[in-house]
Amino acid sequence: MDGIIAAPMSQRPIIIAVIGGSNAAHKDLDAAYQVGLELAKRGAIVLCGGMTGVMEAVCKGAKEAGGTTVGIMPGNNVEDANDYIDIAIPTGLGFARNAIVARAGGAIIAIDGAYGTLSEIGHGLSDGTPVVGLNTWQFIIDGKEDTTIERADNPLDAVEKALAYAEGRRA
Amino acid sequence: MDGIIAAPMSQRPIIIAVIGGSNAAHKDLDAAYQVGLELAKRGAIVLCGGMTGVMEAVCKGAKEAGGTTVGIMPGNNVEDANDYIDIAIPTGLGFARNAIVARAGGAIIAIDGAYGTLSEIGHGLSDGTPVVGLNTWQFIIDGKEDTTIERADNPLDAVEKALAYAEGRRA
Amino acid sequence: MDGIIAAPMSQRPIIIAVIGGSNAAHKDLDAAYQVGLELAKRGAIVLCGGMTGVMEAVCKGAKEAGGTTVGIMPGNNVEDANDYIDIAIPTGLGFARNAIVARAGGAIIAIDGAYGTLSEIGHGLSDGTPVVGLNTWQFIIDGKEDTTIERADNPLDAVEKALAYAEGRRA
Amino acid sequence: MDGIIAAPMSQRPIIIAVIGGSNAAHKDLDAAYQVGLELAKRGAIVLCGGMTGVMEAVCKGAKEAGGTTVGIMPGNNVEDANDYIDIAIPTGLGFARNAIVARAGGAIIAIDGAYGTLSEIGHGLSDGTPVVGLNTWQFIIDGKEDTTIERADNPLDAVEKALAYAEGRRA
Repeated sequence: MDGIIAAPMSQRPIIIAVIGGSNAAHKDLDAAYQVGLELAKRGAIVLCGGMTGVMEAVCKGAKEAGGTTVGIMPGNNVEDANDYIDIAIPTGLGFARNAIVARAGGAIIAIDGAYGTLSEIGHGLSDGTPVVGLNTWQFIIDGKEDTTIERADNPLDAVEKALAYAEGRRA
Repeated sequence: MDGIIAAPMSQRPIIIAVIGGSNAAHKDLDAAYQVGLELAKRGAIVLCGGMTGVMEAVCKGAKEAGGTTVGIMPGNNVEDANDYIDIAIPTGLGFARNAIVARAGGAIIAIDGAYGTLSEIGHGLSDGTPVVGLNTWQFIIDGKEDTTIERADNPLDAVEKALAYAEGRRA
Repeated sequence: MDGIIAAPMSQRPIIIAVIGGSNAAHKDLDAAYQVGLELAKRGAIVLCGGMTGVMEAVCKGAKEAGGTTVGIMPGNNVEDANDYIDIAIPTGLGFARNAIVARAGGAIIAIDGAYGTLSEIGHGLSDGTPVVGLNTWQFIIDGKEDTTIERADNPLDAVEKALAYAEGRRA
Repeated sequence: MDGIIAAPMSQRPIIIAVIGGSNAAHKDLDAAYQVGLELAKRGAIVLCGGMTGVMEAVCKGAKEAGGTTVGIMPGNNVEDANDYIDIAIPTGLGFARNAIVARAGGAIIAIDGAYGTLSEIGHGLSDGTPVVGLNTWQFIIDGKEDTTIERADNPLDAVEKALAYAEGRRA
């Protein structure tokens, strides 16, 4: 067993979780596609919920740039993964899988405003995973906005912010 | 095996999930206590995350009125449940247990503004479980507030709204 | 908030998890029914997977003796619980809920030989939850039987052994 | 968004789940290493629980042959993954993650006899995932051995049997 090239954590590719609804507006799908493309160009693995909408668009972008995609799926059947998922993990957990998606990346990019996305943002903020928002939910409590989510101006900005967070966390 | 009194769904006690942070302001703890008291007076079971803060206060109120309380806990140890939990379920799932809390009641009463509460509201809205809010998060997307959460004016109002939803769902 | 009777752990009712298949032989259903009856007579709460077969029979027995039953269900719908479940928790986790069932009791009584039961026995033994077997799986490794499961001769014996374990664990 | 090479299911690499204890005998670790090596030579992705023992050995073998490895981890911290995991998914679910491991592959290879392995075999058999056993548990019910697990004579035999099952399931 000599001569093996180990893959210790510092050398593993960074994983970025991208969250967003299964039914999204055209502009959000475009943004997701660009996010996937830019993440893959920078060598990051795209992890998502594995289904349609934002999840499919971000994987499509990542695959166009030759990246790797992982889908943490709610159901039991690998066949339900979108066509741009390389590694499909059918958890069978339903929406409880959102907690895994929110934890599995070095940072989260949240796009669009589905309720599942809301739960994933909540999980991410609970866990201390940095969340970068791109046209997504704002949260108000006691009349004041919670500004923990870092807002991005565009897909490239979101990618750069998320990667900076993820790199910082493993430094 | 004759003569058994079955407990079909229509005769089971209603379960209301009460969600809120483990560290909450005094006014939120007071509200949670009143919610527990009023739920128990009306025969509803209080289900929560089993820990401190809002979770403990609502159970304390429920027990004072002779009610039953269930804690769906994140950790492995039943010893971690607050002192007012009758039935402690140590899931070992961490925050993924939030998805169970959000689904297990006929309706949800959300108090206060922790991030875990945010994830549970998201899960509840995803699942179609009615959510009644008492001094909790507001959500804005595309510049407009999402008004799916029914806002309550006070603990009694929250209890009455949640029970009306839960009764309506099993009618 | 004075004068409240707390329910610290030492005063909570003991919970015993009873596991077994949704399709079981008549003798196993009879055994499960007797187990439920004897557990409830002794004040223990019966916790199970909430569905048919052994799960239904044990709850039927418990309810005949006036006991309380909890169902940790795989699906999303409380309507799927058997008619003898008082508190139905629809986890939506599929068979991953078996890990919760295996952990939630002070001890486990395993009846019959379904594959789900096998997974729950494995989870229980992993977690260090005592497992009492009643006509259930035997396990052989390296040609030798693993004798960690305590075998019971009959339902009453299983109940007494499980309660002794559960009481010992919280002493 | 033209010109993208989709990755429909029939073209995805096959995933084989390899399960076994975190503390295993030398012969089992050797077997796991050979299993990983042979799986990777044949282009299969190795998925496991991400920790030590059999999980580490199978990943070490897979990496020596240039393969890809996925770890579905019980805890919250990616740092806990063994050094031969490429894609570490920290589920935070504890042993409930065993249900995901058991479901995520086209087939399972079970090595050795830990209790967690027992739970994963149970989950696999419940789900209908083919299980190939290599020096692992035998199961007896009603005095008869359950022969649903396909026994392999050696690591290469296990790999060939598991791949045949996985290919058959997606044909």
